[in-house]
Amino acid sequence: TRFERCGSTASSKITAAPMVYVRGEEMTAYVMDLIRSRWIEPRVDVGGWETFDLRAKNRDDTEDRVLRDVIEAGKRIKAIFKEPTVTPTADQVKRLGLRKSWGSPNGAMRRGWNGITISRDTIHIDGVELGYKKPVLFERHAVGGEYSAGYKNVGKGKLTTTFTPSEGPDAGKTVVVDEREIVDEEAAVVTYHNPYDNVHDLARFFFGRCLEAKVTPYVVTKKTVFKWQEPFWQIMRTVFDEEFKAQFVAAGVMKEGEELVHLLSDAATMKLVQWRQGGFGMAAHNYDGDVLTDELAQVHKSPGFITSNLVGVHEDGTLIKEFEASHGTVADMDEARLRGEETSLNPLGMVEGLIGAMNHAADVHNIDRDRTHAFTTKMRTVIHQLFREGKGTRDLCGPSGLTTEQFIDAVAERLDA
Amino acid sequence: TRFERCGSTASSKITAAPMVYVRGEEMTAYVMDLIRSRWIEPRVDVGGWETFDLRAKNRDDTEDRVLRDVIEAGKRIKAIFKEPTVTPTADQVKRLGLRKSWGSPNGAMRRGWNGITISRDTIHIDGVELGYKKPVLFERHAVGGEYSAGYKNVGKGKLTTTFTPSEGPDAGKTVVVDEREIVDEEAAVVTYHNPYDNVHDLARFFFGRCLEAKVTPYVVTKKTVFKWQEPFWQIMRTVFDEEFKAQFVAAGVMKEGEELVHLLSDAATMKLVQWRQGGFGMAAHNYDGDVLTDELAQVHKSPGFITSNLVGVHEDGTLIKEFEASHGTVADMDEARLRGEETSLNPLGMVEGLIGAMNHAADVHNIDRDRTHAFTTKMRTVIHQLFREGKGTRDLCGPSGLTTEQFIDAVAERLDA
Repeated sequence: TRFERCGSTASSKITAAPMVYVRGEEMTAYVMDLIRSRWIEPRVDVGGWETFDLRAKNRDDTEDRVLRDVIEAGKRIKAIFKEPTVTPTADQVKRLGLRKSWGSPNGAMRRGWNGITISRDTIHIDGVELGYKKPVLFERHAVGGEYSAGYKNVGKGKLTTTFTPSEGPDAGKTVVVDEREIVDEEAAVVTYHNPYDNVHDLARFFFGRCLEAKVTPYVVTKKTVFKWQEPFWQIMRTVFDEEFKAQFVAAGVMKEGEELVHLLSDAATMKLVQWRQGGFGMAAHNYDGDVLTDELAQVHKSPGFITSNLVGVHEDGTLIKEFEASHGTVADMDEARLRGEETSLNPLGMVEGLIGAMNHAADVHNIDRDRTHAFTTKMRTVIHQLFREGKGTRDLCGPSGLTTEQFIDAVAERLDA
Repeated sequence: TRFERCGSTASSKITAAPMVYVRGEEMTAYVMDLIRSRWIEPRVDVGGWETFDLRAKNRDDTEDRVLRDVIEAGKRIKAIFKEPTVTPTADQVKRLGLRKSWGSPNGAMRRGWNGITISRDTIHIDGVELGYKKPVLFERHAVGGEYSAGYKNVGKGKLTTTFTPSEGPDAGKTVVVDEREIVDEEAAVVTYHNPYDNVHDLARFFFGRCLEAKVTPYVVTKKTVFKWQEPFWQIMRTVFDEEFKAQFVAAGVMKEGEELVHLLSDAATMKLVQWRQGGFGMAAHNYDGDVLTDELAQVHKSPGFITSNLVGVHEDGTLIKEFEASHGTVADMDEARLRGEETSLNPLGMVEGLIGAMNHAADVHNIDRDRTHAFTTKMRTVIHQLFREGKGTRDLCGPSGLTTEQFIDAVAERLDA
């Protein structure tokens, strides 16, 4: 109510630690505006946030300088929240009058922040069953694989791949990695590499999170056939055995004598369907992680209930964390809204991203930590309460659930209680 | 009963067309022996079958000549049934006294028979719900991708991939496909190719099957990011538009003006979870198909209810088809059996393989076709009947279901009725 809100005067507001806030577009931007103005800003002084407009139009107007600015600011500030953005189709390029189709910003962010992993975990609502009963934690190696492959579509001929070490006893001595005749009229040839140096960091981050959540970790590869993936497993296992095994036993997550388990990627697709009870973690290569986390999202009802956090590492060793919803801009719903129709967007995926970013910002900059964590916890608790009471959005509460705006109001009201 | 069986005299037996029968081991070999002796041989003269022993011990004894013989016979005879075989672990190599660990025979079979696709479809039991309500058809491109990659685990240095066309205006002119610095102490470098010439055959086979089953076809790639996969989609779409579109409309599977739909591989993992009603087909690259069909199997209850048929093409243009169950040798159950415990193996996956092979053999050699098809249809019908009546194996009928041997008997009895 008005009286209570006046009670929280500016001076008693929580001070938000510095954070990069990346604005997106369409339905999700509309909802985040409401959340900022109704939930956050009355209670939190967000003067420390640096906001960037990553809408396709602005990327076009700035010739993508805004993306470089986001990356620079992210390096400096280390906590980033990003709203869903549009990667324009040919149609949208035309309609929005863009000079070109600006690609996904993900690659640039991963490189710019020295990405180690994209964490995609199940989101749970206390007392509401989605897919998995207990949490599932997933680490997708943020680099390597076919995403940055060199390739060519070719006809008949000879393909040769060579490697020349620049260090060690064989420095400068070129060896043939692969040589093959292409006998088809039409073929694709592909070369890529998997960098493994940061897998040590990935391992520590993954096992640390599994330990904290008390879930059993699994390492996923196709190493029995794709033999070059062996180091991924070896590094993970070594870090586990040397630094984590005893802790997992002490925490009662694993039994004395139990070993870290490897799963083949194809078997992992089966486990994601089978293990509905949850309570496990998986770490995988980049492409496997891409595919498996989408399966995970669907088994857990929808991409609305999965996090998507890019974790990178600053030169000074601190973690850079970028948080976003794992869904898009929900364009269909935005069109309905613009036609004046009622909508009911569940904002939980974005709110979990915002909570993660605000908490990480408070932690890394050590500014108003306790009050920030208390506020974000309350925000989550209130949302869960409403869903339990059937006063959530219609994706979970059915036709009697609240509209987008009603839900924003209902949460805002309880945040003051 | 004895009287009825005597009624079907040797002279009235069905003549099985020539077929390669590959013997495997453990529980599945035990069950197939029962099926051959109780279901098949009393009713079918299998004198035209050529049987090969592909047990690990025999591969070792023959220095894998037996596998080469299988491939040679398969080329000649074009219809192959294969029981599950063991790919020996280090432990088994020791225990069985093998000279070496003989790898999976799959690669050699795919190359030897000029493999186009591995078809993995859902198996259904009339009146019993497994996972998908209607059939799901899947084609996994049988060649290409990382399975035959060249690779090396390296440190810092320079990786160069070049291609030299052997035909056309640029014949002999070497171009650089990819050049990159490896900056990690530990990395993997990988080169592979996707041959696309046989995708035309894959397309015809896939769309033909979808049309016959009246299911909607989808083509799955990651081509928006892995741009070199574009030809896979283009070939599929061209074959569809030119040869199949009108037929799909005429059959009422698609509407006038509807286009063939492309799915991204990550989205496909979601559709496999969402589309439980079934009634669709997917065709994908080799590795995507590997991963997606395992997910498909699990959503459809287990790998016991998915087919696994390798389709290759002979130089004379006829299709070589190799049929197998998509599960392994069920070693645990074999150990229980050898300890004298009751077991209950559902043989449906293997029987569907045998049915497929016998039908294809009859078709391709045009020997006793109608009676063969009638017999295999009856075998399937009887099995489905028993499951519906709760007289199936315990995986589906619970503890009151039949043992392995009881089920074999029950089917045998009804086959004479």
